[in-house]
Amino acid sequence: MRKSIATVSLSGSLEEKLAAVAAARFDGVEIFDNDLVASDLDPAEIARRCADLGLTIDLFQPLRDIEGLPPEHMGGVLRRLHHKFAIMERLGVDLALACSSVRPDAVDDLDLVAEQLHAVGELAAEHGVRVAYEALAWGRHVDRVGDSWEAVRRADHPNVLLAVDSFHVLSRGDDAGAIADVPGSRIGFLQIADAPRLDMNVLSWSRHHRCFPGQGDLDVAGLVGAVVDAGYRGPLSLEVFSDVVRVADPRMNALDGMRSLLHLEEALRARRDAQRAAGEPVRAVVDLFDPPPVPDRVDAEFVEFAVSPDDHADDDPATSVTALLSALGFAHVATHATRAVQWWRNGDAHVCVTTQPVPGPSRPRPFVSALALRVAEVRDVATRAEALVWPSVAYRRGRFTAALPGVDTPSGLHVFLSGPEGADDDWRQGYPGTPEEHTHGDWLGIDHVGATVPAAMYPAEQSFYRSVFGLRGGVESEFMQPSGRLQSRPFRPESGGLRVVLAVSDAPEPPRVGQIAFACPDVAAAVAHARAAGVSFLPIPANYYDDLLARFDLDQELLAHLRAHDLMYDEDENGRMLHAYTPVMNGQFYLELLQRDDGYAGFGAPGTHVRLAAQARRA
Amino acid sequence: MRKSIATVSLSGSLEEKLAAVAAARFDGVEIFDNDLVASDLDPAEIARRCADLGLTIDLFQPLRDIEGLPPEHMGGVLRRLHHKFAIMERLGVDLALACSSVRPDAVDDLDLVAEQLHAVGELAAEHGVRVAYEALAWGRHVDRVGDSWEAVRRADHPNVLLAVDSFHVLSRGDDAGAIADVPGSRIGFLQIADAPRLDMNVLSWSRHHRCFPGQGDLDVAGLVGAVVDAGYRGPLSLEVFSDVVRVADPRMNALDGMRSLLHLEEALRARRDAQRAAGEPVRAVVDLFDPPPVPDRVDAEFVEFAVSPDDHADDDPATSVTALLSALGFAHVATHATRAVQWWRNGDAHVCVTTQPVPGPSRPRPFVSALALRVAEVRDVATRAEALVWPSVAYRRGRFTAALPGVDTPSGLHVFLSGPEGADDDWRQGYPGTPEEHTHGDWLGIDHVGATVPAAMYPAEQSFYRSVFGLRGGVESEFMQPSGRLQSRPFRPESGGLRVVLAVSDAPEPPRVGQIAFACPDVAAAVAHARAAGVSFLPIPANYYDDLLARFDLDQELLAHLRAHDLMYDEDENGRMLHAYTPVMNGQFYLELLQRDDGYAGFGAPGTHVRLAAQARRA
Repeated sequence: MRKSIATVSLSGSLEEKLAAVAAARFDGVEIFDNDLVASDLDPAEIARRCADLGLTIDLFQPLRDIEGLPPEHMGGVLRRLHHKFAIMERLGVDLALACSSVRPDAVDDLDLVAEQLHAVGELAAEHGVRVAYEALAWGRHVDRVGDSWEAVRRADHPNVLLAVDSFHVLSRGDDAGAIADVPGSRIGFLQIADAPRLDMNVLSWSRHHRCFPGQGDLDVAGLVGAVVDAGYRGPLSLEVFSDVVRVADPRMNALDGMRSLLHLEEALRARRDAQRAAGEPVRAVVDLFDPPPVPDRVDAEFVEFAVSPDDHADDDPATSVTALLSALGFAHVATHATRAVQWWRNGDAHVCVTTQPVPGPSRPRPFVSALALRVAEVRDVATRAEALVWPSVAYRRGRFTAALPGVDTPSGLHVFLSGPEGADDDWRQGYPGTPEEHTHGDWLGIDHVGATVPAAMYPAEQSFYRSVFGLRGGVESEFMQPSGRLQSRPFRPESGGLRVVLAVSDAPEPPRVGQIAFACPDVAAAVAHARAAGVSFLPIPANYYDDLLARFDLDQELLAHLRAHDLMYDEDENGRMLHAYTPVMNGQFYLELLQRDDGYAGFGAPGTHVRLAAQARRA
Repeated sequence: MRKSIATVSLSGSLEEKLAAVAAARFDGVEIFDNDLVASDLDPAEIARRCADLGLTIDLFQPLRDIEGLPPEHMGGVLRRLHHKFAIMERLGVDLALACSSVRPDAVDDLDLVAEQLHAVGELAAEHGVRVAYEALAWGRHVDRVGDSWEAVRRADHPNVLLAVDSFHVLSRGDDAGAIADVPGSRIGFLQIADAPRLDMNVLSWSRHHRCFPGQGDLDVAGLVGAVVDAGYRGPLSLEVFSDVVRVADPRMNALDGMRSLLHLEEALRARRDAQRAAGEPVRAVVDLFDPPPVPDRVDAEFVEFAVSPDDHADDDPATSVTALLSALGFAHVATHATRAVQWWRNGDAHVCVTTQPVPGPSRPRPFVSALALRVAEVRDVATRAEALVWPSVAYRRGRFTAALPGVDTPSGLHVFLSGPEGADDDWRQGYPGTPEEHTHGDWLGIDHVGATVPAAMYPAEQSFYRSVFGLRGGVESEFMQPSGRLQSRPFRPESGGLRVVLAVSDAPEPPRVGQIAFACPDVAAAVAHARAAGVSFLPIPANYYDDLLARFDLDQELLAHLRAHDLMYDEDENGRMLHAYTPVMNGQFYLELLQRDDGYAGFGAPGTHVRLAAQARRA
């Protein structure tokens, strides 16, 4: 289907917005009146600019307070609309969005609304334009889609249509059923936004928390599917505003919006397939995005550190990554056949260390430069990522015999795709030697990886894991840091061992920190071994153990054991976790060693504020 | 009265928090359990640190989920409390705050709650401590102060008292009446927070939007007055958390909190005076802050620019302040007798231009360095500012014969206090010459001054004008900038011409911009004159005038007049405003020339987004 986005959804000047919209391969654009009014370009120049960029102008928006008014005001309204319709003619757009009235003196009389909409339709017809009427969720009287449809029906004018906005419909608790009786030919426009479920005033909710479809909690796909089933064939058009999109880079944000629409189309396709399978009539006979599916399972394979050439294993583990790995019990089991990459291993925990140039913004080494994920369908996932307009899907960092595609996340982490062990596209193919020669250690693997990303990239970073790999977001947690809050959210695949935790900090100048957590069979032994080899762990305050004693009925022996190794502790309904942290290294990353017993499923959240305070003390 | 603050109200490590609390001259502190648990200092060391700083520990908080639980859980609760009470003993604090249960399995049975509170009281007595029980506004069952009081009453234990938290009480719609029956001796602790009225989930409201008393919309003084009337003689203790205080500098923030309590005491004193005057019984016989009152009226007198020594009036008005003033029709009417300050004047608009060093953070010149306000009671207002712990109340920048006290706002603007014309402390006393020699031009004066301040300073900057001068905040507006939102709020005195507009921007790296708006008798003439003399004004796009035509029924002559002079236009129910802007100069300030006709009272808000976009284009 055609795809559009409202200029109000992006930051920047109108020229920057239009360029970003075109670069993200949208077909069209909604022109926000404020953007036009503030622009140096006159309407005809805007029209030319859009045409040059290959964009159609699908909508002019919004017209406000045009109906439900005391009759003596209608003369003024029509005078105002005459001017706006004239601007639309210069802009070359034939459809305007009109919002239901919010004026305090608006009249609660749907017949009056219909009569006035009819008058607006007459004027619109004279100008050769149409008006799509939308029930704002906070409209003075018309605030549900059912009311706005009834007004449009009674207005009974070919130039007065219904506008459906997923946020306005779903935020009021309506669903697809609310438009079941509306013929598709009477739906003039479909605006799309999602939002997290928040218990707050709907106007503030809309202004500050709208997000792209799939990033929130509303059943956007269900409503959009119903609109398409009804016969609507206009564009899918994003209208999203939030504190985040107002500051995000417009190009990144437009791409994020495009991906969300592609992802939405995929959901519509799945919905259609389900209808077909159930023998139901399929009415949405439209062209829908059809990429390879998300992988069946996703596991973490290795992390890569970019280090400087003078990183040596016999240096200080506080500054050298290879020295740290060595002290942790990793061994350098192989060196890449053609590239300056070392493979370090401890059991199923794999770390690659490179002195090669790596893509992404330049940062002081060492830092976490890449994450490799194992999927059975490497090519399909790469194709999927490419189809979703994720950048840098390339074999440019391909290794020896294995051609490893990789994708950059919005915040700049490179994500490699590797096939399973022994497959042609297994990353190990790049390393000479036999499996026996590569074997070392008894760690269980990478338990989770975490990343603290800039606030403006947080939604897009989530979209990446969700759209490419089908990861699902868990509950968002909020922690107090010594300065500012830290919000974090875990992501897991439906099947597979990958755990990704994305976080955003509102500290002044928040660091971009990466976390790598390794699962150990015996974390105390691992810590003791590493400490003997010179690794520093984060000192845990005595007060923490007093608090543990209050919270859990721990025996003195276990408590002494935790204290002795600076281990933190948590329990859930299944089991327990023991874990230890390194300080933040080079201001960019830290490691966690952990031991999950009996199916503990969390991340040690009750101790997070203690860890954050201890890391801040050591910073 | 004694004053305390909870460590949770401040950012930083526990050590930093305690130092900030002491520096702001609080008497005591509430220790937040999380701060203790995360601290390297053990409880005895924290107690010593507090004692060394002259702080008492007034409260340990919070204890959670200690009542209303299925009886089989009480053993675990008492075990947990035993550990926490032991920590309180080491901390040397004898009072703990306990919040009402939020557990999903909490039981809705006030007799059970009371019975369990009684058991807690027994254990507390064994440890020599007491527990103050608070109804969280989002408690599972006990969520109103009436419920918590009833539970405490039925618990009937000397070691179980009621805690009153102004946010929890007022956010649920209760007021002072809700505690009318509670004897003061049974109120163990009083926590104080205000909040803006927001229509949202009360837990999120509390977490993100609490503020110091006087910064929000709740009747905190009424409730606190009632608690004091009831006989409560414990500390007034601030417990405030918000997105802002978590990132604000703890020293600035603690001072801001102290000022808010002093301001609150002033309101309590006014309340007591009113009771006395009405012949009502006065029960709050306590020591209350008693500074000189706010001034009767406040007017803007002059603004000061700090310029570099090579700022010459015959230079380019785009870079030289004196050249700009000259081109605008200001004349250099006098030079300060002892300091390198020029007095420039156009009618009642006064500008001082200094090449002297000025206090505050170093910034590239030119910038707006000071604002002078006229009050009849200069010494009293200076004394008031000093009593409110505002920094830098000093005569250090005193002039010739007039000793002008000044106060720095949190964001660093210096505010001079001047007496009326001809008074001993009139700022003009510093300038040789006669009133006749000083006369020039016909402008009407400084209409308003604006400042965009860092987000973490926005509440404190508001407190400054409110607490020292008694200014009242108007409605907060929100504007979209090309990048990020701009929120702004006007402040006016009860009497006098001063208008201050404070703004905060969530653009990445928001500029600290000052705005000076001058009122002109004929703004078009002023703009034409200035333009002829080489001043650039912000070009206003043609689309803006098309929109004006749609919004207002302007005649073509007026519209042509506005276009010709790049004037913006707005109307309100009384009159209209015509205004023009300079581009932002030196990234730090811009001027507005305006003409208010027939009592127009606004600031041209409908055009603000156009101005912001135009300024961004010129930046």
